[in-house]
Amino acid sequence: MPIRTIYWQQGSIKFIDQTLLPLKFKYITCSDLKTLWEAIKNLRVRGAPAIGVAAAFGVLLAAEKYKGRDLQSFVQHLKDVCAYIATSRPTAVNLFNCLNRMNDVITHYPGESVEILKKLLKKEALQIFEEDRRDCRAMGTFGSTLIKNKGTYLTVCNAGALATVDYGTALGVFYAAKEKGKKFSVYACETRPLLQGARLTAWELLKQKIDTTLICDNMAATLMKQGKIDGVFAGADRIASNGDSANKIGTYSLAVLAKYHNIPLYIVAPFSTFDLKARDERDIPIEERHKEEVTHFRGVQSAPSNVKVFNPAFDVTPNRLITAIVTEKGIIKPPFKMNIQHTFR
Amino acid sequence: MPIRTIYWQQGSIKFIDQTLLPLKFKYITCSDLKTLWEAIKNLRVRGAPAIGVAAAFGVLLAAEKYKGRDLQSFVQHLKDVCAYIATSRPTAVNLFNCLNRMNDVITHYPGESVEILKKLLKKEALQIFEEDRRDCRAMGTFGSTLIKNKGTYLTVCNAGALATVDYGTALGVFYAAKEKGKKFSVYACETRPLLQGARLTAWELLKQKIDTTLICDNMAATLMKQGKIDGVFAGADRIASNGDSANKIGTYSLAVLAKYHNIPLYIVAPFSTFDLKARDERDIPIEERHKEEVTHFRGVQSAPSNVKVFNPAFDVTPNRLITAIVTEKGIIKPPFKMNIQHTFR
Repeated sequence: MPIRTIYWQQGSIKFIDQTLLPLKFKYITCSDLKTLWEAIKNLRVRGAPAIGVAAAFGVLLAAEKYKGRDLQSFVQHLKDVCAYIATSRPTAVNLFNCLNRMNDVITHYPGESVEILKKLLKKEALQIFEEDRRDCRAMGTFGSTLIKNKGTYLTVCNAGALATVDYGTALGVFYAAKEKGKKFSVYACETRPLLQGARLTAWELLKQKIDTTLICDNMAATLMKQGKIDGVFAGADRIASNGDSANKIGTYSLAVLAKYHNIPLYIVAPFSTFDLKARDERDIPIEERHKEEVTHFRGVQSAPSNVKVFNPAFDVTPNRLITAIVTEKGIIKPPFKMNIQHTFR
Repeated sequence: MPIRTIYWQQGSIKFIDQTLLPLKFKYITCSDLKTLWEAIKNLRVRGAPAIGVAAAFGVLLAAEKYKGRDLQSFVQHLKDVCAYIATSRPTAVNLFNCLNRMNDVITHYPGESVEILKKLLKKEALQIFEEDRRDCRAMGTFGSTLIKNKGTYLTVCNAGALATVDYGTALGVFYAAKEKGKKFSVYACETRPLLQGARLTAWELLKQKIDTTLICDNMAATLMKQGKIDGVFAGADRIASNGDSANKIGTYSLAVLAKYHNIPLYIVAPFSTFDLKARDERDIPIEERHKEEVTHFRGVQSAPSNVKVFNPAFDVTPNRLITAIVTEKGIIKPPFKMNIQHTFR
């Protein structure tokens, strides 16, 4: 049964409120930008590709709701909307890439009427949506060649259907491998502090009937030492032009551990996650989130109130620790800088 | 202000119920073995050295409560008591070492009366208690030479006053360094699943006015990459004769990360944590605990009910990843097998 994480329905954005999973499965019908901004900020909708689609739908929402006919005001309004949505979260570049695509529609058709522009914006947003569906399946097909029969794989955070429109990046690899009839099992890192692995990945892998075992993040090394992990699959929130990949906090840790234990680590992400203007990890901004995410769990306090907290939401895995990057155009291997250029030129 | 984690008071064992920290600071007065067994099993009293003291006090409790005067029945009763306490937790060898010491009292004085044996057992239990206080301070003194002024150190789980009688092993190093006037700061790994780092270490370090920052376990690698960690200090639950050291799950992960980032990793543990009969990590049993520790936090569910869970309470750091072992007799450096023999012969 497919999971529809986010879609456009009769002038509104529908998306699953992921903060309620796995206990409640509920959609939000969003028809105003403030609700959307809050939903992105507070991870009701999350995952780099899904955030990109949400941002595009946000611009579409603003366009469709716009009442006037004055082109200049309309264009200015949409620019303001893009700037507003851009402040929701800083690391996932899909957000900015998708906002840029929506903005480009306006720029490329300078003489068109508000009415025509609205139609073009809708076309672009739905295209972004469709591309995500198509690209995830393409990544899955390419990535599934890396899954061996009876293998055991590790994943972190949620790079699944819930992080995209409906299929997933890293987890899409598992779904495609399963469709091909391969047997394998998956360990999911719970992914502190917000437990996307426990709450989301475990939920969707079980829903897709994939053999899944949950671990705390600090248990991955033991599994690797025991020879139980054949590969690590992770998504990404921003990939620099040299292949350095930002992803959920803990990914870098797994990458070092994988290297030490001689286990391949694969990043699975579409072109919309690449930031070719970023030379390397130094150009990737890392979001730091509030301390209560670490000191409390759903209102239950677990640490002294007066303790300081360091809570980066992401880390960057340098290219030297990455075995390959699976994209919708194929699997990119080192040397990454050159091969990324070749793939996306 | 010192923290008195466990002590003997008027025929009862008094200990802090650590499951309530940091929100409640409360002592349990324990005068029956079932309560003690449950307290060890459920980590109300935890930390290898504290468990050792608790086990010795348990035998003392059973001896003092014994009503008869028949020597043979008394000896058999105490052997049963030792066997019962030994089933509470499997990994921390201090538990078994302390039970052995109590048992040795009986063996070494075969002709003595029940009354005399009770006195000798009390003397031994209180000696174990006093040795812990003394040894922790000795480890602190040796270990404090490894702390540099303005340094920043990482620790995992709780190897502090709360893991011992009143001072700590790894955290004792910090306390001794502070007593010497050194300035430094500490990052505490929260230590999933039971959050001993967040609940206990953050609490006691703040109480001792040590600059403390809490992180999730998966954030340690980022700090190391940023050059922010000058050393890792961890306790141990069992150290094999070659130096392989079992400690709270996640320690092995930190050890690999520390090695990769060229950061020293120190194990701080007393002789009672050494198991010289264990050749290496293959001889150390690892406790696996129930899945609800991972899927729930204080009754709040965070993962699907039907997911499988792998929940080892400990991992083993092989000697090649350990820079030195700080003991009450001095700092042991590689080659560990030879130097451990020399230190404790």
